[in-house]
Amino acid sequence: MRATVMHGAGDVRIENVPDARLVEPTDALVVVTRACICGSDLWPYKSMEPSDTGRRMGHEFIGLVEAVGADVRTVSVGDLVVAPFAWSDGTCVFCREGLHTSCLHGGWWGGTDQDGGQGEAVRVPQADGTLVVLPVDRDDALMPSLLTLSDVMGTGHHAALAARVGPGKHVAVVGDGAVGLCGVIAAKRLGAEQIIILGRHPDRIALAREFGATDVVGERGEEAVARVRELTGGLGVHSVLECVGLEESMLTALGVARPGGAVGRVGVPQHEVIPASLPTFFNNVTIGGGPAPARAYIEELLPDVLDGRIEPGRVLDRVIDLEEVPDGYRAMNDREAIKVMIDF
Amino acid sequence: MRATVMHGAGDVRIENVPDARLVEPTDALVVVTRACICGSDLWPYKSMEPSDTGRRMGHEFIGLVEAVGADVRTVSVGDLVVAPFAWSDGTCVFCREGLHTSCLHGGWWGGTDQDGGQGEAVRVPQADGTLVVLPVDRDDALMPSLLTLSDVMGTGHHAALAARVGPGKHVAVVGDGAVGLCGVIAAKRLGAEQIIILGRHPDRIALAREFGATDVVGERGEEAVARVRELTGGLGVHSVLECVGLEESMLTALGVARPGGAVGRVGVPQHEVIPASLPTFFNNVTIGGGPAPARAYIEELLPDVLDGRIEPGRVLDRVIDLEEVPDGYRAMNDREAIKVMIDF
Repeated sequence: MRATVMHGAGDVRIENVPDARLVEPTDALVVVTRACICGSDLWPYKSMEPSDTGRRMGHEFIGLVEAVGADVRTVSVGDLVVAPFAWSDGTCVFCREGLHTSCLHGGWWGGTDQDGGQGEAVRVPQADGTLVVLPVDRDDALMPSLLTLSDVMGTGHHAALAARVGPGKHVAVVGDGAVGLCGVIAAKRLGAEQIIILGRHPDRIALAREFGATDVVGERGEEAVARVRELTGGLGVHSVLECVGLEESMLTALGVARPGGAVGRVGVPQHEVIPASLPTFFNNVTIGGGPAPARAYIEELLPDVLDGRIEPGRVLDRVIDLEEVPDGYRAMNDREAIKVMIDF
Repeated sequence: MRATVMHGAGDVRIENVPDARLVEPTDALVVVTRACICGSDLWPYKSMEPSDTGRRMGHEFIGLVEAVGADVRTVSVGDLVVAPFAWSDGTCVFCREGLHTSCLHGGWWGGTDQDGGQGEAVRVPQADGTLVVLPVDRDDALMPSLLTLSDVMGTGHHAALAARVGPGKHVAVVGDGAVGLCGVIAAKRLGAEQIIILGRHPDRIALAREFGATDVVGERGEEAVARVRELTGGLGVHSVLECVGLEESMLTALGVARPGGAVGRVGVPQHEVIPASLPTFFNNVTIGGGPAPARAYIEELLPDVLDGRIEPGRVLDRVIDLEEVPDGYRAMNDREAIKVMIDF
């Protein structure tokens, strides 16, 4: 079968790889119908050391179940399913607590041992715990928004929950990428009164406003902090969604949080450390977040997607086919596209 | 009047200083009856650069109101009052949210501009917002426990809240100093099922057990992390109270937190940074805490102290008079005493 393999920074190839197949009785075999490229895929795209074996890519996909193992109970051949960006058994202590990314029997797509979503088919371990059946046809117009439930919309929602967004709260979203834009949707959905987006790309800012952003801050660093304080009567915001993962963005996030506020971080940290003291400690600012338990959020967010109350699929502003994936990486890395969808 | 002045590392003197007096109409003048030495006073005791002017010390005290300004309404001459370790107006946006340490018109005792608690009298700004009247006599047997409401008991309680302690939770307390011991009291009071104290001083550990600790870990660093994991079925604890403030203790705290857990830190950080990534980010561990809004907690904890349900005063294991304060610092620094009370 054909699949995406990264061999080093800037070196993404579509190659023939061994066909995906059932291994364990708890597996399902899913033929991918839609997938996408994630902002986190761009970190190795910028920095990966050259590799002979390469790394299979992709962790966001929707597909049709082609076969199931003997122990699979909740999905059947022919079902259209969405997969979250990590698999999980749905029964361990952490899954029961809603933290599926820490599943004791879970794992991550791609790499050297697992199929990735940016390929024709995927072996899905722990199929009962992992997959959610979608009550629509494979070419439904909602497909882009449904696909965001695999990662980016759940990640924005996680940032909002970790930042304790709620009715009446003043919120800042650091970063206008796809996660930040979904963070705006999540903050609006959770009742935020003020949503300040920190970003400077006109097309993304326009989308953020349509999603519910009330204010835009184009400055960076200390100027951004000063501007957010101006917009919040000098106090700062209750909730900060840190949707980048760089040291500068984290410092900005900590700087705009008001005393007693919370920062929810969801960008995989590309930095080593967080300042231990000022302003975080003395302001009693809480730092939370991590990989979103997207599986937990699919059931919560799916009704809103199906009803059209939220439209996170609008962040997918370019559609390509599998053979065009290398150019899709380039387009996202060059910021020509916010987020790229692969239609198989 | 006589008061404690620190002139440099290891150099604590009792000196004649200008008499405390009313300045603003919102002030009260309080004659101190009890005070204590704080673990945080030991940081400058270890490291302060020599200073000609010196630094007035002490931020935990109980005393009798000797005079009040024209605008003071809630305390009267003759009242016995306890002061939290920061003053606050009680009416600003942060005070109304219960975060009195971020009061817009608040401040901190001691230093070069304010009286400190380790002296004969204190000018108390924002007296209405700051002071709480105690319904007991100045020599009541509960005085040590009441005095802990000024800081150490509220700080342990804050660590427990920031670590999200609740019924049935598994908890680790890093540090067996006075704050850690009060953290054990707080965790027990909030319904924790398992309370693991990390410390190695036999007298303090014995007290921790009396306060409700169920397990003791004497190891440090990675060995301590491994031991806590053993005691929690390999999972780690839901809640970690970081009651030290050093890099090593924070790393231990992050290491023993279970996925989805929370670290509440209350020790003034003596370290620069917190690791941004593993294990915190991937385990979705939340880091919270800061200076405890002790003022908010006095009213919550006072009934339990008055009823004898909690006995935090037991951490005050040495009583001295004002002239003996320099030796009190030495005794705490040498770990001869857990915490020293000054009886005027």
